[in-house]
Amino acid sequence: MTEKKTITINGAGLVGSLLAILLAKKGYEVVIYDMRPDPRETKALGGRSINLALSNRGWLALEKAGIAQEIKQKAIPMKGRMMHNTDGKLTFQPYGKSGQAIFSVSRSGLNQTLIEQSSKLETVRYQFDKKCTSVDLDASTLYFTDTNTQKTLSTTYNYLIGSDGAFSPTRAAMQRKTRFNYSQEFLTHGYKELHIPATPEGDFALEPNALHIWPRKQFMLIALPNADKSFTATLFLAFEGRTAFENLQTTANISAFFEQHFPDTLPIIPALVEQFQENPTSSLVTIKCQPWLYHNTLLIGDASHAIVPFYGQGMNSGFEDCYLLDDMLENAKQPILSVFDEFQKQRKKDADAIAELALQNFIEMRDLVADKDFLLRKKIEARLHELYPSNWMPLYSMVTFSHIPYSEALKVGQKQQTIMNDVMQLEGIENNWETIDFSNIKALKQYFT
Amino acid sequence: MTEKKTITINGAGLVGSLLAILLAKKGYEVVIYDMRPDPRETKALGGRSINLALSNRGWLALEKAGIAQEIKQKAIPMKGRMMHNTDGKLTFQPYGKSGQAIFSVSRSGLNQTLIEQSSKLETVRYQFDKKCTSVDLDASTLYFTDTNTQKTLSTTYNYLIGSDGAFSPTRAAMQRKTRFNYSQEFLTHGYKELHIPATPEGDFALEPNALHIWPRKQFMLIALPNADKSFTATLFLAFEGRTAFENLQTTANISAFFEQHFPDTLPIIPALVEQFQENPTSSLVTIKCQPWLYHNTLLIGDASHAIVPFYGQGMNSGFEDCYLLDDMLENAKQPILSVFDEFQKQRKKDADAIAELALQNFIEMRDLVADKDFLLRKKIEARLHELYPSNWMPLYSMVTFSHIPYSEALKVGQKQQTIMNDVMQLEGIENNWETIDFSNIKALKQYFT
Repeated sequence: MTEKKTITINGAGLVGSLLAILLAKKGYEVVIYDMRPDPRETKALGGRSINLALSNRGWLALEKAGIAQEIKQKAIPMKGRMMHNTDGKLTFQPYGKSGQAIFSVSRSGLNQTLIEQSSKLETVRYQFDKKCTSVDLDASTLYFTDTNTQKTLSTTYNYLIGSDGAFSPTRAAMQRKTRFNYSQEFLTHGYKELHIPATPEGDFALEPNALHIWPRKQFMLIALPNADKSFTATLFLAFEGRTAFENLQTTANISAFFEQHFPDTLPIIPALVEQFQENPTSSLVTIKCQPWLYHNTLLIGDASHAIVPFYGQGMNSGFEDCYLLDDMLENAKQPILSVFDEFQKQRKKDADAIAELALQNFIEMRDLVADKDFLLRKKIEARLHELYPSNWMPLYSMVTFSHIPYSEALKVGQKQQTIMNDVMQLEGIENNWETIDFSNIKALKQYFT
Repeated sequence: MTEKKTITINGAGLVGSLLAILLAKKGYEVVIYDMRPDPRETKALGGRSINLALSNRGWLALEKAGIAQEIKQKAIPMKGRMMHNTDGKLTFQPYGKSGQAIFSVSRSGLNQTLIEQSSKLETVRYQFDKKCTSVDLDASTLYFTDTNTQKTLSTTYNYLIGSDGAFSPTRAAMQRKTRFNYSQEFLTHGYKELHIPATPEGDFALEPNALHIWPRKQFMLIALPNADKSFTATLFLAFEGRTAFENLQTTANISAFFEQHFPDTLPIIPALVEQFQENPTSSLVTIKCQPWLYHNTLLIGDASHAIVPFYGQGMNSGFEDCYLLDDMLENAKQPILSVFDEFQKQRKKDADAIAELALQNFIEMRDLVADKDFLLRKKIEARLHELYPSNWMPLYSMVTFSHIPYSEALKVGQKQQTIMNDVMQLEGIENNWETIDFSNIKALKQYFT
């Protein structure tokens, strides 16, 4: 690598601040702009608070940046799904094999650590309180308002990486160029967060090493543990319709809804109605675009592929972007812009695949996880994975615990589904799945060879 | 109808000016804004010049507006496709049954007529030279720049209908509202227009009552007749790649390309290279969005569903929008906003269907029309239509010559394709298709009952 130039990053969120570390370690000068105040001074970062689940793709990037250990100390492993029936009955379903888990982390805590660690590097320079107002892509110029002085500032760049999130100003500038493919698709469902504090005794109010789900077909509640022994619960529900946010306005309606559908949460969510009425109802969007590169400006993370949260892969896919880009820069013999171009070409299909998978998983979480047939399927798949570890990895494991490209996982998952449809038709399968000789089943035989 | 209010229309293109007539006839006061100068003064309307083919859906709306006859006088019937082989051989393929045709019209001429006719109505008021700069949807206010004085103007509205085209400022305002689904998808192909003048003897240079196609698999040239006996030809070609606009820059390249692929056009396109180099290369986009209604503002035509031109249904679908909306207002017992809402709910699936069909037809036009099997299929389908006129209408006829909702046509077309796949497998079909007893074929029997 002979080009030692400055790379400008627009947005110091999770992806931007991680990328700063990786690029700086590679020898680049990095300048990174963000609209928020310096979290090292204020000790608080604004923005979305929805819980995050770190899984293997995310960890790999954090390891490359040398900060995985520090982050793991504050992360809480969740080994599976804990399903809550209306009658209070609990069912636990492991995510993967023994020892495998996804990790609950706080978005703001993680962002804080990433900014702290990256700003220790000599070649990383942060510019906080700079709200990006526009980007002149042809003049390689970023425009900001300084949120303290209200003055307009501008800066030119050699290379710009837009890690400025789902509503990216960098992408907005690209969208004004010709032949920019773009889509934003909102779910008819929205979400609202609710806080479950630690018990008066200072304990977790629910089993901490699980992701809790109250699946109710058309809607669901989930809860993830926090380091302070509280949980953050999130209700996913339609905006409009009979059972919908629009009809949950009054104390009576809200209380009745929770009493009917989530009775076991009543003792652990204090001031439920007040929380419900005060906390915002937010929307869920999938954003796709192409190209991600315009001259010397590249989009990354949510800016290029914002997805719904149901596979827990929003942050993980963004971190994997960083890992892959860094990896390609490492091994590249071409100029940096050719690497950017190669990156977008290679990564687009995987971004599309995880967007698709995330949408599918909403159905699975809210509807199927309470379905008997579905649970049997999962058990059989887990057994196949045990028996044939290198030949059969369930889709969830491919996405969560492997580094198989998302597009490959989606394809293999579809094939597996066809086979499992056959397996589920086998006479007596519900009784003999633990003893049956799968190697004699035709569909599986073909799949394995 | 007891509400006699003013409806404001943003955009006096084909759809806006037709809608003005229909609404005025229904008793509404109509104010219509456009950025262009008054065509009755300048005798020229700017904007896109790509040829238009009027078909039954468009005619029905024009009839309702009482201006079909006037427009038909200047329209040229095209009874089928005239395919041009590289060796100059011509093949004619009728579009429908005897007597059926689509009609070539000039965009600017048609727009001029619509504006002239609508401005004769007492309750229609035009405001030209008003470039819309923004729309405040919540304050029901439109902002303009007067292109003569450069002054900023604003006006409030009771109801606004945005017929302001594929790059609609009205839609842009909606896009800034939450939960607005939106996509813009560009083809990798672009287009360039070329002029084929009348011959020195004052005749058409090609058969006038046909749409000419030079299908060349990955690209194609088409030509539509004009009233002045010229033709407008359009080359559809990839922007990038080996055979692509990017590689047609020099005189030598352009000449060689036409000599190789369209030799029979060389004698009839004068100053080919100059035209090619001077005329712009334009892009082709499909735009979808939802909802089309925000409070008292409705999108219509290209503003709500811009499609690629390959089925000749862009204008026709916009005119059908006008017809349907007008029809619903006529029969409605609800307030106008409920009608707007009903319209968008009913029409969206049809807009999506014609978008899909238009994309599919590009493949058909550039690739399949020169395919032997495909031509046989078309002949068999035409025969089925002849034998069973009420049971088998080919997809092209459903779209072009009927008023069957586009979504229904798409569905029936898919079913027909499956059946035709079977029919094409019949032993000896290429020889006996004119004599075979179709009523004995199982797939068809099932379809007919």
